[in-house]
Amino acid sequence: MANIHDVARAAGVSIATVSRHLAGQRIRSTAAVDRAIAELDFRPNTSARGLRLGRHNTVAAIVPDISNPYFAQIVRGLEETIAPAGLRVVVASSNEDADTEVQLLNRLSDAVDAFVLVPAIESDATKLALERIALPTVLVDRVLHEESAFDVVVVDNAAGAELAARHLAGLGHTLLAIISGPQTSLPGRIRHEQFVAAAAEANVEIPERFRKIGQFTQDFGYEATRELLAEPERPTAIFVGNNLMAHGALKALNEAHIAVPAELSMLSFDDFALAELLNPPHSVISRPAGLEGQIAGERILHRLAQPDAPAVKRILPVSLTLRASTAPPPRTAP
Amino acid sequence: MANIHDVARAAGVSIATVSRHLAGQRIRSTAAVDRAIAELDFRPNTSARGLRLGRHNTVAAIVPDISNPYFAQIVRGLEETIAPAGLRVVVASSNEDADTEVQLLNRLSDAVDAFVLVPAIESDATKLALERIALPTVLVDRVLHEESAFDVVVVDNAAGAELAARHLAGLGHTLLAIISGPQTSLPGRIRHEQFVAAAAEANVEIPERFRKIGQFTQDFGYEATRELLAEPERPTAIFVGNNLMAHGALKALNEAHIAVPAELSMLSFDDFALAELLNPPHSVISRPAGLEGQIAGERILHRLAQPDAPAVKRILPVSLTLRASTAPPPRTAP
Repeated sequence: MANIHDVARAAGVSIATVSRHLAGQRIRSTAAVDRAIAELDFRPNTSARGLRLGRHNTVAAIVPDISNPYFAQIVRGLEETIAPAGLRVVVASSNEDADTEVQLLNRLSDAVDAFVLVPAIESDATKLALERIALPTVLVDRVLHEESAFDVVVVDNAAGAELAARHLAGLGHTLLAIISGPQTSLPGRIRHEQFVAAAAEANVEIPERFRKIGQFTQDFGYEATRELLAEPERPTAIFVGNNLMAHGALKALNEAHIAVPAELSMLSFDDFALAELLNPPHSVISRPAGLEGQIAGERILHRLAQPDAPAVKRILPVSLTLRASTAPPPRTAP
Repeated sequence: MANIHDVARAAGVSIATVSRHLAGQRIRSTAAVDRAIAELDFRPNTSARGLRLGRHNTVAAIVPDISNPYFAQIVRGLEETIAPAGLRVVVASSNEDADTEVQLLNRLSDAVDAFVLVPAIESDATKLALERIALPTVLVDRVLHEESAFDVVVVDNAAGAELAARHLAGLGHTLLAIISGPQTSLPGRIRHEQFVAAAAEANVEIPERFRKIGQFTQDFGYEATRELLAEPERPTAIFVGNNLMAHGALKALNEAHIAVPAELSMLSFDDFALAELLNPPHSVISRPAGLEGQIAGERILHRLAQPDAPAVKRILPVSLTLRASTAPPPRTAP
């Protein structure tokens, strides 16, 4: 008997599109999907369970920090995509801890059909746990050492960091600083390395004292910025590696009454809700968090229908969203 | 054999405190707890499971909107409190829909030991589902019709709305507007009613066209503010009923180039991450979201140890955090 995957293939659309159509939502390719359903004599069960995409009708999303709105956006995108297929999402937070992550995977493995995982670090223990559990898994935003066995959805961190470095160097900054997340995570490491490399290509060397590496938290962003401001010679521009660290950095700059961008330019990775309402409106490297979740959801639906499908890696583009927090460096007295 | 609840009672501390102590964390009442453990000959199992607080070691938190940072803060507080007792949290979002909520409760009921629920609306279906499922349940932030059967942790919405109305009326505003969430939810209804009532007590009548009632979303806050700005006679102050609606309202004011607070004062319920960095820094009614989660966690631990404990209702205080978004109304031409 034909299943939802056969219908999707025959109609040339994704499983997510077919399930949205079956759920009564509007899709672009109605005619093609209806034709495939008729030709294959596909009989969707009226209940969502009839899609038979899983025993539990539940997907677990494990994220490193539930209070980071960026991960909430990924979860929303995931939900939007798989809910029409009758699948629910439960979310759990590893709090950036690999042991907690493995515990969560083990504990949830007999209550869910699939995992969407943003790994805390590139941990072999997590990789082994996932292999043993053997449920469909999509890694989002970060990866594990051996990524090839799993579907992966990430953004182009390297391109984002390079955009940032070229923009700041292009404005004439020669005293660049960078505040980065853990080098044990893909976004922490790639953003850091590529920013430093792209700055070097533009003939700007970033001294060790202007390279701050820590946690992806508001507290670390705040402390690192205070340290940078306490240097005898300050940087004239700071690139901050994620949204929460940027909140901390903005707080530190505000407390120190630094005029942005007149005295110091600032740019960070990940857009956030109120960035355009700040004074000045804050410039960022934007990325499509909702889309990351949607694509992860499509991979889950695909893999539940076809468990042996080859692993796919998707790298989504980022862009430079210029508002008003960067400018040429202040003129220094000769 | 003595259990963790007996130890807590003998030491005069909460179960959460005992479990923190057993997990090796620092507590204030170490001596009392150690004495109780010795006197009762309590033998904590070295594994977290040994506390026998549940079969699954998992608590499900069901919230209306996973992308609202306020709910993330509640979840963080919950996690901090119950993790030392070996309990994990999984989160699911009802997306403000009572049917989804009941589905989630049913689906998760055989995989978790307890529920922390922020109900979408005051739904009889949810109440019946909870009674049938009969797991320990704490309602947080909102309630159901018959709240007495469940533990409840809410904030003093009435006091917050009254503080807001008195502050704005006290500045001399007579043209007050309010943007409110659904009247089917406790915070939506109480904040609305009490703001209107407290304004009336201060001799300020709020006309129907200045009372906007809709969803707790950024989109609704934006649209409602645009409608208020399009009135022939505009309000001179707006009170906005939650953080997300406030984001929308701020966006609308910014787009319309309204000078806050010179032309229009604004105040909203719920503090948010960047409120103090906005131009002007944004004034709010603050509430202790993390503490709400912590107290919910303590109630869960208590109820897992003592399933028949009488239901308790906790109402936490709110406060007025004045920054710079309110001022006396502009002088009008006579």
